[in-house]
Amino acid sequence: MGLFDILSPRAVASCILILSSLAQDVAAIPSAKSPWVRNAYAKKKMTDHVKRAVYGTHVTRSEPELCADSVATSIKAPKSNPWKHLADYETAAVVEWMFQQPDLNLTTSDEAGSWDNTIQLVEAMWPNKTDALAYIDGTAQPPVKYAHVVLNNRATEDAHYADIIVGPLPVDNATTKWEPLTFPWTKQNGGKVRNLDADTDILYGQWLFKIGAEIADITKDLWNATAMGMENDTLAIWGIDPLWQDDGKIIRWDTFWRTASGEIAGDGGTLMPLGLYFSSDVTGRDPSKWKIEGWLYNSIFYETTEAFKEAYWSEGFVKLPPNDEGLWTGTDHKGDVPARDTAHPPTMVAPAGNRFGVDHEEQYVEWMDFTFYIGFTRDVGMTLYDIRYKGQRLIYELGLQEALAHYAGNDPMNSGTAYLDTFYGFGPFAFELVKGYDCPAHAHYLNSTFYVSETSHTHVDSICLFEYVSDFPIQRHTTTDYVSVTKNTYFVVRYVSTVGNYDYTFTYSFFLDGSIAVEVRASGYIQSAYFANNEDYGYKIHDALSGSMHDHVLNFKADFDVLGTNNSVQFVSMVPVSKSYPWSKGKVRNTMAIERSFLENEDQGRFNWAPNSATQVIVVNEEEKNKYGEYRGYRVLPYTGAAHLTVKNSTNLANSCNWAGYDVQVSVRKDTEYKSAHPWNSQDVHDPPIDFDKYFDGENLRGEDLVLWLNLGMHHIPHSGDLPNTVMTTAHSGIQFMPSNYFEGDESRKTVNQVRINYADGHATNVVTFGQFDMKAAAKSEEGTCSKTCKLDFTPADPAHEKYMGDIVVRKFPFDPNNPYFETIGIS
Amino acid sequence: MGLFDILSPRAVASCILILSSLAQDVAAIPSAKSPWVRNAYAKKKMTDHVKRAVYGTHVTRSEPELCADSVATSIKAPKSNPWKHLADYETAAVVEWMFQQPDLNLTTSDEAGSWDNTIQLVEAMWPNKTDALAYIDGTAQPPVKYAHVVLNNRATEDAHYADIIVGPLPVDNATTKWEPLTFPWTKQNGGKVRNLDADTDILYGQWLFKIGAEIADITKDLWNATAMGMENDTLAIWGIDPLWQDDGKIIRWDTFWRTASGEIAGDGGTLMPLGLYFSSDVTGRDPSKWKIEGWLYNSIFYETTEAFKEAYWSEGFVKLPPNDEGLWTGTDHKGDVPARDTAHPPTMVAPAGNRFGVDHEEQYVEWMDFTFYIGFTRDVGMTLYDIRYKGQRLIYELGLQEALAHYAGNDPMNSGTAYLDTFYGFGPFAFELVKGYDCPAHAHYLNSTFYVSETSHTHVDSICLFEYVSDFPIQRHTTTDYVSVTKNTYFVVRYVSTVGNYDYTFTYSFFLDGSIAVEVRASGYIQSAYFANNEDYGYKIHDALSGSMHDHVLNFKADFDVLGTNNSVQFVSMVPVSKSYPWSKGKVRNTMAIERSFLENEDQGRFNWAPNSATQVIVVNEEEKNKYGEYRGYRVLPYTGAAHLTVKNSTNLANSCNWAGYDVQVSVRKDTEYKSAHPWNSQDVHDPPIDFDKYFDGENLRGEDLVLWLNLGMHHIPHSGDLPNTVMTTAHSGIQFMPSNYFEGDESRKTVNQVRINYADGHATNVVTFGQFDMKAAAKSEEGTCSKTCKLDFTPADPAHEKYMGDIVVRKFPFDPNNPYFETIGIS
Repeated sequence: MGLFDILSPRAVASCILILSSLAQDVAAIPSAKSPWVRNAYAKKKMTDHVKRAVYGTHVTRSEPELCADSVATSIKAPKSNPWKHLADYETAAVVEWMFQQPDLNLTTSDEAGSWDNTIQLVEAMWPNKTDALAYIDGTAQPPVKYAHVVLNNRATEDAHYADIIVGPLPVDNATTKWEPLTFPWTKQNGGKVRNLDADTDILYGQWLFKIGAEIADITKDLWNATAMGMENDTLAIWGIDPLWQDDGKIIRWDTFWRTASGEIAGDGGTLMPLGLYFSSDVTGRDPSKWKIEGWLYNSIFYETTEAFKEAYWSEGFVKLPPNDEGLWTGTDHKGDVPARDTAHPPTMVAPAGNRFGVDHEEQYVEWMDFTFYIGFTRDVGMTLYDIRYKGQRLIYELGLQEALAHYAGNDPMNSGTAYLDTFYGFGPFAFELVKGYDCPAHAHYLNSTFYVSETSHTHVDSICLFEYVSDFPIQRHTTTDYVSVTKNTYFVVRYVSTVGNYDYTFTYSFFLDGSIAVEVRASGYIQSAYFANNEDYGYKIHDALSGSMHDHVLNFKADFDVLGTNNSVQFVSMVPVSKSYPWSKGKVRNTMAIERSFLENEDQGRFNWAPNSATQVIVVNEEEKNKYGEYRGYRVLPYTGAAHLTVKNSTNLANSCNWAGYDVQVSVRKDTEYKSAHPWNSQDVHDPPIDFDKYFDGENLRGEDLVLWLNLGMHHIPHSGDLPNTVMTTAHSGIQFMPSNYFEGDESRKTVNQVRINYADGHATNVVTFGQFDMKAAAKSEEGTCSKTCKLDFTPADPAHEKYMGDIVVRKFPFDPNNPYFETIGIS
Repeated sequence: MGLFDILSPRAVASCILILSSLAQDVAAIPSAKSPWVRNAYAKKKMTDHVKRAVYGTHVTRSEPELCADSVATSIKAPKSNPWKHLADYETAAVVEWMFQQPDLNLTTSDEAGSWDNTIQLVEAMWPNKTDALAYIDGTAQPPVKYAHVVLNNRATEDAHYADIIVGPLPVDNATTKWEPLTFPWTKQNGGKVRNLDADTDILYGQWLFKIGAEIADITKDLWNATAMGMENDTLAIWGIDPLWQDDGKIIRWDTFWRTASGEIAGDGGTLMPLGLYFSSDVTGRDPSKWKIEGWLYNSIFYETTEAFKEAYWSEGFVKLPPNDEGLWTGTDHKGDVPARDTAHPPTMVAPAGNRFGVDHEEQYVEWMDFTFYIGFTRDVGMTLYDIRYKGQRLIYELGLQEALAHYAGNDPMNSGTAYLDTFYGFGPFAFELVKGYDCPAHAHYLNSTFYVSETSHTHVDSICLFEYVSDFPIQRHTTTDYVSVTKNTYFVVRYVSTVGNYDYTFTYSFFLDGSIAVEVRASGYIQSAYFANNEDYGYKIHDALSGSMHDHVLNFKADFDVLGTNNSVQFVSMVPVSKSYPWSKGKVRNTMAIERSFLENEDQGRFNWAPNSATQVIVVNEEEKNKYGEYRGYRVLPYTGAAHLTVKNSTNLANSCNWAGYDVQVSVRKDTEYKSAHPWNSQDVHDPPIDFDKYFDGENLRGEDLVLWLNLGMHHIPHSGDLPNTVMTTAHSGIQFMPSNYFEGDESRKTVNQVRINYADGHATNVVTFGQFDMKAAAKSEEGTCSKTCKLDFTPADPAHEKYMGDIVVRKFPFDPNNPYFETIGIS
C-alpha cells in the first residue's frame, strides 16, 4: 500500500502532476512513498520486446498468409498530420530550452519542492483551423509548430498554473520564444489559473494526518483503524472536489474511507466510506493558519473537534456500522458457473486480416470511403480530425471536451463532489487495452503518449482500430421471387480511460451508409456514499452503503464542415395538424405535417432534443442543394440515452460547467473559442479560464463555420447490480450522425458483401454474390497456391495476455531515449 | 407479373385470406392469376431434403467434433408448452369437424366464391393465464386445448369475420363444440367484425379496372400505359388503407402506380406513384351501386370523370412527369467497390458450437440462467412466454401486439394511409432467414407455421437463436496493479417479417447481467408519394418523388411477474433541488435529490418517458424488498429512440389505434384484456373490436398483476439514403429491461469468460482465466483425443445459400401430410 492508496481516487492525479515535490516531502511520511515515486528512482531495464513496442510503434504481428490481398495495409497519408504529438526529440529540445530561460525560474521535477516552479505539460500546440485548412486543403506549407506548455508556478504565494506557448519549432535559440497563451480562454488574465492543489503534500503530512491522529481514539473505537500516515494505516482520508471557493475562502470537506487491502482483486476503496466528515479552512499557503471548521456524524454537526469528542464519548452516542472489504468488493469470478459457460463463446475473427489502411507515422486511417487523422492529448485523450468521405470533409474536429460526474447527498462529501475530469486528464489514464476483451483480438492497436515530469509515457496498444460485423444486417428485403440482404460491417476506433474509479470506453464507429456514431460506456467502481440519512440520494446497496446518485455529462465538440465551412442548422419537425384539403370535401382531417426552420443565432443556440423525438437537427450548407432541391446535410440524433445535467446552477461548479445544461449547443467556430472547458476550470469555479456561457452572444448562425457542442450523459442511481462494477449493457450514451439527402442513394449498395438469392419451387435458382471473396472457391484450391491461407487461423481470436505490459516511460530531461523504463500508474 | 404485382403491397395479404374466391373470379381477368394461385393448382413435388426440414423440424446440422462438451444441446422442457401451435393432425381434425357443422355453412377455399363462408384461420387458442400458471407453476394438468378459428362469413349482405373457439381438443364428436369468441374484445357483439374487403376480387374486375379502362386515353397520354386488367398492363391501381368509414359510407381513394418490371432486382413498385387519384363510394356489396366521387391531379379536384377529362384535354393543362423504374429502384450492388471490400470481412464463429439448449418439441430455450417458451401466431409472429431467470419468472408474456405505419400528405393517398399491420399478419410473412446475413451462420434455426386456406404453411428456418459477443466488454476496470475485464456475450432470438414493402427485424436479446432488450429495425422499400405539392409532407428524393413522412409505432405487451404477480410500478426521479443542510452553515445549495412515487391507478396509467430521462420506471413487488430494504424490481427504459404517434385523434384510425398515443401504458392484466389491438380493427375504426381506451377505467395498479404496453417507434421522413431501401443503422427502436436491486450484485460475475491480468515492471505477472476453456491447451493436445476438435471450422461462417428454399405448404383439408409442396408468397 502506497500513498496513492490513501488519497482520493482522483486527487492522486494531481499528485502525479507535482511529482518532484512529492518525492521530497513524502519522505517525511513514514513508508508512504508511492509506487510511482519508488519506480522513478529505480528505473527498470527494458527488455527488447518492449523497446520494439515503443519505437516500432505499430506492433508488428506475424501476419497470416492469406488468399486475399487484404492484410492490414500500410498507407501514406496525403499530408503530414498537423495535429500530431511532438516527437521525443522535439519535446526534449523544448524542455531543455525552457530550463535555459532565467525568467521561467524552473526547477526539475526531481529537485523541486512545493515552492518551486515546474513544467506540468509539454504538448504540441494545436494549429488554428485557418492555417490547418490552408495546408490540408490547399498548397500552403504545414502550420508552423509550437509547443503548448503548462507551468506549475508554485514559487509564489499565489501559486498558479500558466499556459504558455514555446516556438517556433524546431528550437533555435535565435528565434524560439515563449509567450503566455491567452487567446483561447474567456478569462483574459495572462493565461494564469490559481492552483488550489499547490500544497497537496503538506496537506497530508501537516494537516489531514495530524487530524487523523488527533481523532485516532475515535477511529480506533469505531473501526479499529487509524489514518495517521503510518505504514499500518487502514484508513484513507479524502474529500470533495472541487473545494468550496466562496467568500474568498478555500474550504475542504474530507471523510474517512477503508483502504483496499490488496488481498482480493478489488480496487474497492470507493465502496468503503465510513460516515465521519470534517471541514477545514485551508485558505492560503501557510498551514499554520488552516483551521478545523467542524465535524459531521450521523447528520449531527459539531462545530469543533472538542465538541465532537465530547459527544462521542457521552452516553447514548449512536455508533453506526462500517463498510468492510469482502468478496462483494472484488471483481473476480464468483457464483455458480452457468450451464455451458466453460465452453468457448462465439468470437469474431478476421479471416482476411484487417481491411483498412493506417499510416502509423502520420496517425492517418482509411476504411472504405472514410479517412481521418488521429490526435492525442493529455486533457481528453484521442481526437479525430479531418473526417472525410470520398475525399470530402464532413467534420474538421470530433472529440471529447470535458466529462463531469456531479454527485448529491445529505452529507457534505457527496453533496460537494462534482468532478471535472480533464483536471486529471483522460490521456494519462488511457491504458493498454486488453485484446479480445476491450477490442476484438484481430484489432489493430496504436500507442499513445503523454508528458509528465520531464518524461514522456507511452501507453502501449491504447487505441484500437477494428472492423466488426453487427448481429443484424444493414439492409434486407424479401419478395415473392428473391431476397436481398447486406452485411452491416462497420469500423471502430476506441480508447479507454480509467479516471480513478471509473472506466470510460470511448467509441467512434463508421458505417457503410455514411453514418457515424459517438458512444461512451462506463464501468469500474462507483464512488459510493455512507448510508446514514442518504435515502433521498440513492439506494441502499450494502450493509452501510448508499449508491450515491450522480450525473455523468460528457461534452463533445463536433466541428462540422458539410460541403465547406459555411454551415447552418436546420430543424425539420413532425407536428400534428388539423387541416382540410381540396379533396376532403370541407372536412377537417387530423393528420401531421413537416415544419422547417433554421437556427438563426446564438441566442437560440442552446436547446434540448425535442419531446417524442419530433425534431430532426440537420447540419446543412444552404448553398448546396441536391438535384432535387433538398439541402445536402448530416443529421445529428441521439442514439442511446443522451442526457444533460440535472442540477441547475450547481453550487459546486458555478460557472465551470456552463457547457452541461443542454443537449445541443451551437456556436460560431472561432480560434478564440476552441474548447468548451479548460482543464483547470475546477480551480476557480466562479471565474474559470473558460466560461462557456460567454460563447453565446447572439452571433448569426446561418452560413457560418459552426461547432455543435453535444452532450452525452447518464443519470446514475447505482443499485445492487453496480456491485462490484457498473456494467456497460446499460451504462451507455451515444449520438449518431447520419446523412440526410447528402448522397444520391444508400451508400451501402457499393459493398460486395451482400447477397441476392432468387428462388422458386423450393430451391434457390440463383445466388448472386457480386464478386465478394469466395471462401469455398479458395478452399477448393487448397492444394494450390493458397494452401495455408484459406484455413481460418484461430490465433488472433486467442491473444497472448502474457504480453500485456503496462506503461513505458522515456526521460525527456535529461533526454534519455535509449533507456525507457516501466511505470503504470492508476488512481487506486 | 401476376395480379399481386398490381395490387397494393398490403392489400395482397387480404387476397391471400380470400384465396379461393380469388382463384375463381380472377379467371375473368385475362392472365392476371397470381403465382400463389397458379401454384395452388400445380403443387410441386417435394424433395427429400425439404421433407426433412419440415418433419425433422430442427435442421440437423453436421455437428463438428469439439473438445468441449458444448455442442448445441437438446434439452427437455420442465413442462409441455401451453402456448404451442396446434399439431398438423389437430388442425386437420378441427377443419374436418367444422366442415361437418351445418350451422357454419362452410365452403372450402378452393370452391368458395365471394358469397360463401370460408375458414380464415385455425390456431391454438391461448390459455387463460390462471390456467397456464396452475400448470407451469403448480401441479395442475395442462390447460384444456381449444382451437381459435376465424371464419370469413361472406354468404350474407353483412359480410363479416367471426372469431370462434372450437373444442375441447382432441376433436370428439360427442364433446367438441364451437362458440363465439367474445370475452377478449371490448366490443361485445358476438365476436363479429365487418369485412370491408369481402369483394376485393369484384373490386378489380368490376370496378377499378373498368375505371382504368375509362381513363385509358389519359393514362396512355401521360404514361404510355394502362391499368385495365390486361396482360400488358404496366400500371397498378391501389389506394388507402383503411378505407374511409364516415357517415355510414365506405369511401376509397386509389391512385396509379408503375409496376416493377422484374427485369432488375427491384421490388420497387412503391417507389413509382404517378400522381393521379380518384375516389369512389363502394358502400355495400352491389357494385352496380358504387360510384366515382371525384378525381385529383396536381392538387386540383374534379368532381366527375367528365370534368377531369375535359380539363385534361383543354389547352394549358399542366402535365407532370412520371416515376420510372431504373437502377435507382434496385437493391443489387452498384457503385465503386471501396478499397479492400472484396476481401472477406470479419465474421463471428462459434468454435465450441452453440452454448444453449433447445427443446424443439416444446419450443423451449435455455441460455445461461435464462429460460423461456416460444409461441408463434398469425397476427404477430413470435411471442416469448414464461421468461425466467434462475427458475424465477420475470415476464409471463412478451411480444408484439400491433404495428402501425401512419402516413400524411397533401394528397388523399398518403393522407389516408395508416396501416395496422396485424390485419395482414406478421406470421404469414416471417420468411426463411438468410444465414450469415439476417443472423450469424452459427445460429440455430427454428421453423414456424401458419394456416391459410385449409393448408398450413411452414416457414423453414424463420426464427434464429444465437449467441454473439459485442464489440465492447460488459465490465472492465484498470488499477495500478491489475486489469479486470469481462466479455459481453449475449443471446438473441429473432424473426423477420416482410409485410409488403417493409421488412421488420424483431430482436429479443438477453445479457449476462440479467438485462433484456427488445428491438425492432426496419428495412425494405419505403412507400413513397408523388412529389406534386407534397413539400410539407416529405423530402423530394427523386425526379418526381417525395419520401412520404410517416410514423411507425409498434406496441409490445410485457406482462411482468416480478417475484409473483402482485406488482406495482415505482417512479424514481432525479430532480434539481435548492436546500440547506445542518453542515451548510445556513447556505442554500443548488443540488439534486431523488423523488419516489407509485403509479396508483389506471387514470395515471398512460405516460411518456420523462424529459432528460429524469425518471426511472421500475416494476416491483411491494412485498419483496431485498435485505437492505430496497424493492427488488426490473426497470424499463428506452434503449434506442422509442417514440409514440405524432398524429392526435387520427381521422384515419379513430379508435382503432388508441394504444399508440403514449410511450408507456400500464393496466391491470385480465383475461378479458388480452391484446392491445384486434387484427381487424381497421375494418371498423370508429367501433373496433378492441378499443384500447376502454382498458383504462381507474382500477388500482398497486400490488396487482400488471401489463406494461410499451411503444417502440420511428418517425420517418425518408431521404435520398432510403433509396432503394431503408437502412437499419438508423431505422431502429428499442427498450431495455434491467434489474434494479433485483440481484445481490452484478450477475455477470458468474461467467468464467473474464480475465484478470496482474502486471508489474512491464510484464504480466499473473493471468487468471477462472477456468474458461483453454484453446491453447487444447491445441497442444492436438495429437491426442482432441485432434480435430480444436481447429476452428470455417464452415459455419460460410453458409450454403443454395439451400435456401422458401415456404412449405401442407394441405389440411383434405389432410395430406405426406405431400407437402412449395409456395413463397410475398406482398410485392
